[in-house]
Amino acid sequence: PQTFISPPSSVSCVQLETQKDLYPPPVSLLHVPLRYIGVLGNLYVLFESDRGLVLMDQHAAHERVLFERMLSYVGTNGVVPSQKLLLPQTIELSTRDSQMLREILPALQQLGISIAEFGPHTFLLDGLPALIKIGDPKQFVLDLIDGVKEATVPLDIRHLGWETLARTVCRHAVKAHDPLSHEEILALLEQLRHCQMPYTCPHGRPTLIELSYQEIEKKFGRVT
Amino acid sequence: PQTFISPPSSVSCVQLETQKDLYPPPVSLLHVPLRYIGVLGNLYVLFESDRGLVLMDQHAAHERVLFERMLSYVGTNGVVPSQKLLLPQTIELSTRDSQMLREILPALQQLGISIAEFGPHTFLLDGLPALIKIGDPKQFVLDLIDGVKEATVPLDIRHLGWETLARTVCRHAVKAHDPLSHEEILALLEQLRHCQMPYTCPHGRPTLIELSYQEIEKKFGRVT
Repeated sequence: PQTFISPPSSVSCVQLETQKDLYPPPVSLLHVPLRYIGVLGNLYVLFESDRGLVLMDQHAAHERVLFERMLSYVGTNGVVPSQKLLLPQTIELSTRDSQMLREILPALQQLGISIAEFGPHTFLLDGLPALIKIGDPKQFVLDLIDGVKEATVPLDIRHLGWETLARTVCRHAVKAHDPLSHEEILALLEQLRHCQMPYTCPHGRPTLIELSYQEIEKKFGRVT
Repeated sequence: PQTFISPPSSVSCVQLETQKDLYPPPVSLLHVPLRYIGVLGNLYVLFESDRGLVLMDQHAAHERVLFERMLSYVGTNGVVPSQKLLLPQTIELSTRDSQMLREILPALQQLGISIAEFGPHTFLLDGLPALIKIGDPKQFVLDLIDGVKEATVPLDIRHLGWETLARTVCRHAVKAHDPLSHEEILALLEQLRHCQMPYTCPHGRPTLIELSYQEIEKKFGRVT
């Protein structure tokens, strides 16, 4: 049976992002009817499709939406709109982390994260991407640095593309985002429907999984 | 991990019913917290448990509830209360089906189904179990005869116990029952919670299945 959730598993996420033109577009999520049922564990949104149960990982979906918005901003205007913090925050780092942050400052600036050098180990954070809401800006930057370190082991910051960085920004941006209202969930689905690659998060994990009626019937012993 | 949906698969349903005293009671469904989420495909009720997603097959659950009520009636009073039909209905059968129905008439009477002989191939239906709602009484009896034939292949009606018959009655009684209101679903869950064997329908199929957070995380690639 035709499946609408079908990124080929042999192709990595990075390939999908960079080889867009070679990769045939999946069946458009735009045209898949999904009836909202409810939310499981404050994370998984349950929908009824024509073929069974669909679960959306709201974090993964949100990452995808945010990532594509960042891509499109940098692609068209060259820079993601930044929102000034009411209170700029100072960030103290180790020698090594300071060196690393210094190297990615221009790319962060492009993504709407405004950080300036304030001393050899001190930085001043005074702006964040207007696209996202961050509860604790300083912690967000510290987590982001951790994420960048993870993404570049062995550490070679010079080869870190801004796409990789945007991916890391997105991951840390949506982590704090928790229970969503009914309206926010439907808006998120709508945004996901309009993504170019709606079926995976920027790291290649699924945003949607499906439990078909056939699988459910099998579990219930209705068919064998 | 301990599972609360755990009828041993090596024991058949009939054994479970007849060897009640030998079989240790499963973890009581009474004490499993289940938060109602919604309904999938007009059939599967979705709940959130402490451990993940729980799906209830409302037909199977309804069969179980009805079956145990019939068991308890026949066990205590000897007969299931019958409700008279406003318009008694005549049923014409083949020679073979007539013979079969004639043999199970006393057992059907015990289960609240009031049918009398009206001629060599004609019967008069004038009462159905008060426990159940039947849209088309005549069709119900025809389906029931089909079900009895299925249950006794090769046909040996004399060895058909009233428990087997009750099981067949339940299956055909709940088939017509479709979309349930929110209140009816919660009432059904409550009745199922009080059953002695809540985890399977009278035929041994599950009434509840579980998709744990662990399984869901695996499908979403959050754990491997």
